[in-house]
Amino acid sequence: MDYKHIFQAAIDRLHDEGRYRVFIDILRTRGKYPDAQCFGGNGPKPITVWCSNDYLGMGQHPAVLTAMEEALHDVGAGSGGTRNIGGNTHYHVELEAELASLHGKEAALLFTSGYVSNEAALSTLGKLLPGCVIFSDELNHASMIAGIKNSGCEKRVFRHNDLAHLEELLEGEEPGTPKLIAFESVYSMDGDVAPIAAICDLADRYGALTYLDEVHAVGMYGEHGGGISERDAVADRVTIIEGTLGKAFGVMGGYIAADRNIVDCIRSYAPGFIFTTSLSPVLVAGALASVRHLKASAMERDAQQDAAAMLKRKFADAGLPVMESVTHIVPLLVGCPVKAKRISDVLLAEYGLYVQPINYPTVPRGTERLRFTPGPWHSEDKQDELVGALVEIWDRLELKAAA
Amino acid sequence: MDYKHIFQAAIDRLHDEGRYRVFIDILRTRGKYPDAQCFGGNGPKPITVWCSNDYLGMGQHPAVLTAMEEALHDVGAGSGGTRNIGGNTHYHVELEAELASLHGKEAALLFTSGYVSNEAALSTLGKLLPGCVIFSDELNHASMIAGIKNSGCEKRVFRHNDLAHLEELLEGEEPGTPKLIAFESVYSMDGDVAPIAAICDLADRYGALTYLDEVHAVGMYGEHGGGISERDAVADRVTIIEGTLGKAFGVMGGYIAADRNIVDCIRSYAPGFIFTTSLSPVLVAGALASVRHLKASAMERDAQQDAAAMLKRKFADAGLPVMESVTHIVPLLVGCPVKAKRISDVLLAEYGLYVQPINYPTVPRGTERLRFTPGPWHSEDKQDELVGALVEIWDRLELKAAA
Ligand SMILES: Cc1ncc(COP(=O)(O)O)c(C=O)c1O
Ligand SMILES: Cc1ncc(COP(=O)(O)O)c(C=O)c1O
Repeated sequence: MDYKHIFQAAIDRLHDEGRYRVFIDILRTRGKYPDAQCFGGNGPKPITVWCSNDYLGMGQHPAVLTAMEEALHDVGAGSGGTRNIGGNTHYHVELEAELASLHGKEAALLFTSGYVSNEAALSTLGKLLPGCVIFSDELNHASMIAGIKNSGCEKRVFRHNDLAHLEELLEGEEPGTPKLIAFESVYSMDGDVAPIAAICDLADRYGALTYLDEVHAVGMYGEHGGGISERDAVADRVTIIEGTLGKAFGVMGGYIAADRNIVDCIRSYAPGFIFTTSLSPVLVAGALASVRHLKASAMERDAQQDAAAMLKRKFADAGLPVMESVTHIVPLLVGCPVKAKRISDVLLAEYGLYVQPINYPTVPRGTERLRFTPGPWHSEDKQDELVGALVEIWDRLELKAAA
Repeated sequence: MDYKHIFQAAIDRLHDEGRYRVFIDILRTRGKYPDAQCFGGNGPKPITVWCSNDYLGMGQHPAVLTAMEEALHDVGAGSGGTRNIGGNTHYHVELEAELASLHGKEAALLFTSGYVSNEAALSTLGKLLPGCVIFSDELNHASMIAGIKNSGCEKRVFRHNDLAHLEELLEGEEPGTPKLIAFESVYSMDGDVAPIAAICDLADRYGALTYLDEVHAVGMYGEHGGGISERDAVADRVTIIEGTLGKAFGVMGGYIAADRNIVDCIRSYAPGFIFTTSLSPVLVAGALASVRHLKASAMERDAQQDAAAMLKRKFADAGLPVMESVTHIVPLLVGCPVKAKRISDVLLAEYGLYVQPINYPTVPRGTERLRFTPGPWHSEDKQDELVGALVEIWDRLELKAAA
């Protein structure tokens, strides 16, 4: 077997399509985010980060850092075991209670990441419900797709946020068939939002459970940061809410919140939860501080919304092809992986501005884009600097601006 | 649909079989490991932990804690992005280089956990090699089983460490079929070791790739902590070596090490690597310090081996049913989930000694056990205290001692 050749060919395919990924090597400057250092080439160089999912800058919040430092001093670096075998710390127990309360649910369960929470919860739910059919929004995240696939269930994909199509598919199944509708609240590459209440109406009508990924909304929407389901006052209608600790909460890890028995089932049956070292208590302590802070403080959320509104306006005024978005996500359409990478390269090399090009498979081919995530610390000066640079590059590369 | 009933029944099944898991809620006392606090009941109570996989106590090592504190101060709590989108820090790049060097490989790749590294690497390898058949040791860990299942490849399960059976299965396939042999070095529930060189001989003979899980060996075996493959001087013969940062290295995370192109393929194609927030730089900095320390220092490894040898001898001398193990793992056979839990409960409640009962599905039914992991800080006094307690409980519960 010529294995070498097979692996080489797989790499060559990526180069040929212009989507071989080179990771930008950076170190953030704590307390100065979005400022950072970029490595490679001629030593470290100062840059501004425009594409972080630490949306509110909580990764540098003093309450978070203090909590992590204390945990590090009190209990050490890692948990040393799975949740069942020595790795269940008091921090884990407390954070799960806090997350359950955040979403108004009976219980919550931590995972090592949002990816793992989706994969483990969906695959296990599907296995526990014999004959279950899963209805999945076509733009669902890779981790939900993995979970659904690994559940072994039949899957029906509905067109993005299309209630009529979802209803048509629900109607097509027997009333006695277990059903689960899996979808996101904020779709992170476009910035649009699901009609949660209407999807719950359909779920009621057709006897389906609902599974909502709030990864790009927790911490950022709702009076306490409970996500779009809190903002829209529908959290109690959603069966399972899933979130991450690695984006607006600024740390790392994932979770689900639901009825006690559902959480207990996933805790007891999901290999991706059971057979892995639990989250480091240092991370859990940091996340606990972050969730608690954002439950009480709306300042960060408000500042983020203002920054996003301002950047959208500035992009539009400058004639840049800003995509429609009703959230904090600000995408510019490019439509070609090579050009998207080129703009990003020039921005970084000549202007010290870092935004990653978003290519297939993260978004569909032909919709390649630059995705900006302005936050509380992207000042108007920084925004003007970014807009100026983009206008110059757009001109230089002769890209078509929006009509 | 009566979903509530289905979930309740799934929980009831576990209670009926005596394997419903209640997590012990603990906080380690940093710098005093294996001492810890146990919560619940009448407030915190001091205990000694006997079942941690922080095998060498690196989770409290000053070099690790200092590195984590510095990273926390320098860059903050979380990475804020996937490796491709803003979450590739200089720490990640450095640790991957260090791990590649530890195993004498061209490259390495970090994942959020050992579980994810196995799932992502095996499922992706299988998909990249059309028609691949995967040969899997029957005692392989759940994360390897998940990866193999999700690869969609044909699987042949060989009897544990049985070379003749493995060869028989290899012989049964066409010479032109891509083949991958997946196995572990140290099997963590029994403490036995795979014949790596002989498996590589078979791989050579039948044109197979090899995938070796060294999760329970890295940091602990070999001159630099490169695992059993380093100790046996066969690392260069193994195609892919997988390890964790959450056990002997004392932190959290997982990795693979292999040829540059193989690593690049998994980096570029594995959803479980691509679509998730990267490891917190705080964890990466801690793991980097830990790997570097254990590369240079054999003191912890030697002390652990001494402690394990001593505890095995003391168990045998006391007539306790210690299972055969050629490594640092010291299991006592009980053979019944209810009794195993009962012994563990009494040990904790009356003696303040914490060892988790190991039940199905972690081990086969009928082989339920207590699994002790003595380390450098389990002194002879602590060992005598443990043996005394076990002898008393064994008598009390009238368990049969080994002949
Ligand atoms: C919608 C969605 N769900 C889940 C995840 C995974 O979360 P995590 O980064 O915590 O693994 C992501 C992104 O990473 C995401 O965009
Ligand atoms: C053999 C083996 N492989 C992989 C893992 C997973 O590693 P991690 O805990 O880093 O997820 C474990 C245990 O957790 C294990 O025992």
